[in-house]
Order: sequence, then structure tokens, then C-alpha cells
Amino acid sequence: MNCILLPAAHFSNDSAQINSVAQIAHINKVLAAKMGDTLKIGQLGGNLGTAIIEHITPESIQLRNVQLAIKPPPKLGITVVLALPRPKVLRRLIMDMTALGVHDIILINSYRTQKSYWQSPMLSRLNEFVLEGLQQGVDTIAPRISLQKRFKPFVEDELAHLITNRAIVAHPYGALSFSQYLQQQTLVTPEKNEGLLAESESSNKTILPSMVFIGAEGGWIDYEIELLATQGCQAVHIGPRILRTEAAVNAMLGQWLL
Amino acid sequence: MNCILLPAAHFSNDSAQINSVAQIAHINKVLAAKMGDTLKIGQLGGNLGTAIIEHITPESIQLRNVQLAIKPPPKLGITVVLALPRPKVLRRLIMDMTALGVHDIILINSYRTQKSYWQSPMLSRLNEFVLEGLQQGVDTIAPRISLQKRFKPFVEDELAHLITNRAIVAHPYGALSFSQYLQQQTLVTPEKNEGLLAESESSNKTILPSMVFIGAEGGWIDYEIELLATQGCQAVHIGPRILRTEAAVNAMLGQWLL
Repeated sequence: MNCILLPAAHFSNDSAQINSVAQIAHINKVLAAKMGDTLKIGQLGGNLGTAIIEHITPESIQLRNVQLAIKPPPKLGITVVLALPRPKVLRRLIMDMTALGVHDIILINSYRTQKSYWQSPMLSRLNEFVLEGLQQGVDTIAPRISLQKRFKPFVEDELAHLITNRAIVAHPYGALSFSQYLQQQTLVTPEKNEGLLAESESSNKTILPSMVFIGAEGGWIDYEIELLATQGCQAVHIGPRILRTEAAVNAMLGQWLL
Repeated sequence: MNCILLPAAHFSNDSAQINSVAQIAHINKVLAAKMGDTLKIGQLGGNLGTAIIEHITPESIQLRNVQLAIKPPPKLGITVVLALPRPKVLRRLIMDMTALGVHDIILINSYRTQKSYWQSPMLSRLNEFVLEGLQQGVDTIAPRISLQKRFKPFVEDELAHLITNRAIVAHPYGALSFSQYLQQQTLVTPEKNEGLLAESESSNKTILPSMVFIGAEGGWIDYEIELLATQGCQAVHIGPRILRTEAAVNAMLGQWLL
């Protein structure tokens, strides 16, 4: 928890109130903060800033001198479409994608997603995991999360409207590596035709895709890769090594941070 | 477990024997494999390949037709110096760095590393976590892992011999972003002086650092960053967002995969 986020309703003028059990425990045990100490806080959906602890009781912490002048960091211009993973890793995946600043998250069914995953009680706790991710990443704006229980109708009917730029699907057996894909994107920019100087400039400009499909354990089956290809979604790999879903998500999305 | 790795002593001619409880459980429960099925296997320190299941008992699995013709994937040319993390996350961090193909891992003390971490029984299980990482990433060559309990002598006396190329330290308050750092490295290459054409070529060549320091929760203190700077180790950030150690390691090292 690198900042404490509170809903707008918990603020009034320059004071605010914390009454979440997890936040109070963090302030007492991890930060060992006391009256008069300054906390890093933020308003959900609003700005980041600081406040001073006025009063601590077991049930609530009262804050004064609330100053919320810092805009949250920009979101990454990326939609992640993730095959619904095992419930056990769902929490960390949602947290990490939120902390990284992913704008849109779509949890989708895939051939290798077990049906039981869709019944997991973890799916009703997504807001909680998002809050954890925002407080980890020091951001206030929750990603949009949607669930798509049917792969084929989503890809055939909805994907075309969603791909605003370029889409890729992470696939160990993709024909192109991620860097080859990026090079191809650079080569087709119009600057290419404007002579050497322009080319040298454009070669530094990396055009990242705006949507990435990431499979869960076991990855995508050929049918899924082929259906995605019919919508212009290119399969790319990031080398011969097979990573845990969490590791793959972070390794892939790290590209958008730099 | 995307392959089953066995020590050299378990092979004889074209047969091999599995007697690890974890591997037998994986073959029975996850793969649900039976006599006559083909397994992806590898020899620790050797090649990757396949074998056919000859016989299954509760205590061992006998393999025949062992074929080990595939070289393991190349390692990433990177040494990761990681502030010893909480024991709870050590397993996943060692697994992930191994799966990613990190060549050398140095676990180091830092101001924010709790002394008790060095007494954790998890530290005696590193080989086990490495094996998990190799079987995840489909590799056979274990990374070299060393422990450095004293930060200052390591940085002052040993670091100069270890930095074969360029070193960076991941630090949210670093003056340069990772991409700015890479651009600087590109600009100082000699090709820069050979005119526009060479420049346009060299601008596509990314020179990645060969050593990266990554802090654990709470990151590095100023003194540590300054001491590293005296050895030419540049502080770089990957944006304003603060990531979990695991997420940061994967997001950072993802650069070497592409």
C-alpha cells in the first residue's frame, strides 16, 4: 500500500475519514503512524496528495489538512484481453495489471479455461483487487473490467469495434517475435517515404499495439489463434521460454512503461 | 511444469528413471499420462527432448526411447542483483528469474532487508525453486546464485570486477527513465560519428545493460544509490508507478526477451 485511497464520500472540506479495516491495520502496523504524521492519500477517481492524522481509534482514523493537488499518472494505452485464469492467481493478476496502469481489462473464456473458474467467488471481489492494485501503483483511476464468457461471439462480433489501433495475441508459437512485430509497424509508417532523415527519426518511434490477448496456463489453441487472425490480430512470441501467466503479463506490459 | 528435468545420473543409454515425488504427481495428476505416452524431458545441464513412458509405479516412472537432441534456449546476458526479499516471495522470484533465463543472480543485503530474512529456511531451498523455474521456462541450465550479506564491501570491492558492460539500478526516483538510458547508450556508440546512414542503422541497435540492481519492498535508500553511482551504476526508473517486486522484476527483464 503505497498510498491510501478513499472514496469521494469520505472527504469533506479539508478533512477525511478512514474506516476500512485493511487500511487502518496498514497505517497502524506497517507504517506505525501516529497522530500528527503525514500520510500519502488519494481520492478514488480523483487526485493524489497528503493529509495529516488528526485522531486514531480502533474503528476509524480522522485526517485533517487534506491536500489533493497531484494528478494520477497517465494510463497505459492498452486493453488486455486475458483468458480467465485460475482463481488463485486472479487476485495478483488484477492487482498487477491495475498497478501497471492498464486502461481496460477483458476477462474472456478460452478453450483451456476451466468452466469452474467462472463460478469462483473471487470474481465478485474484483473491486477489492483493483483497490489493492491502485494503492500499490499509486493511481486513483480504476481500470474498466468486463467479463466475456463466450470467446467466438466476442471475437467475431465485438472485436472489430474495439481494435482502435493494432492487436496482438501472445503465443509461444507465433511467427513473429514482439520486436519483429514492432519493427514491421515502424516500417509501414508514412515517414518511411520521406527520405533518410525522416526514416532515421521514425525508426526511434515505437508504435505499440493497443490491444493484447494473453492466454492462461496452457495458452491458446490453434482455433483461437486462427479466429483472432481473421480479425487482424497478429500472433507474436517473446522467445522460447514459457512463463507463468503473471510473469508473462508483467514481462509483456513492461514494454508500455518504458 | 512444461518439461520434466532429470539429473544426468538418472539416464542410462536410451532409458531414464523419474523418482521425484513432485514429478510423479505432475505426470499422474496434471498430465494424466499413461504407459506409451510421450513426455517432454530434459537433462539438467544438458539437452532437451522427449521420452516414452515404459512403466509407472507409485515410487518411480521408467522411461524408454530417450531422445535429447534439442539445445536449451540461450540465457539472457544479464546479472540480476536483488535485495533479498521477504521469504514468502523468494520462491516465485527465483522461479521467475530462472524461467526468464537470467544467467547470474546475486541476492544482496540492503538497508530495507530485514535481518531475519537471512535466517529463513527458504534460503536452503533455492535449488528446488531453480528446478521449478527451469521446468516452467523449458531450460536445463541453472542460473548461478550467490548470496552477499554485506552491501558496502560487495559494491566497493567486488562490483568493479563484475560489471563487464553497463550496470543500472531500478529506482523510482532515478533521473533517467529506462528508455532514456537506452537512448543515451545508443548515442555514445562509435557509429554515431560515421554519418547519417550509420546513425540511422545504429539507432535500431539497443544496447541493454548487463547488470541490474532491483530493490525489495521499499526500494533502495539514498546512500545505496549514491554508493552504486560511485561504481558507475546508473539509477533508472520505469515510470511513476510502484510495482510489487515480482512485477518489477518481470516488467524490467521482459526487455531482454524481445
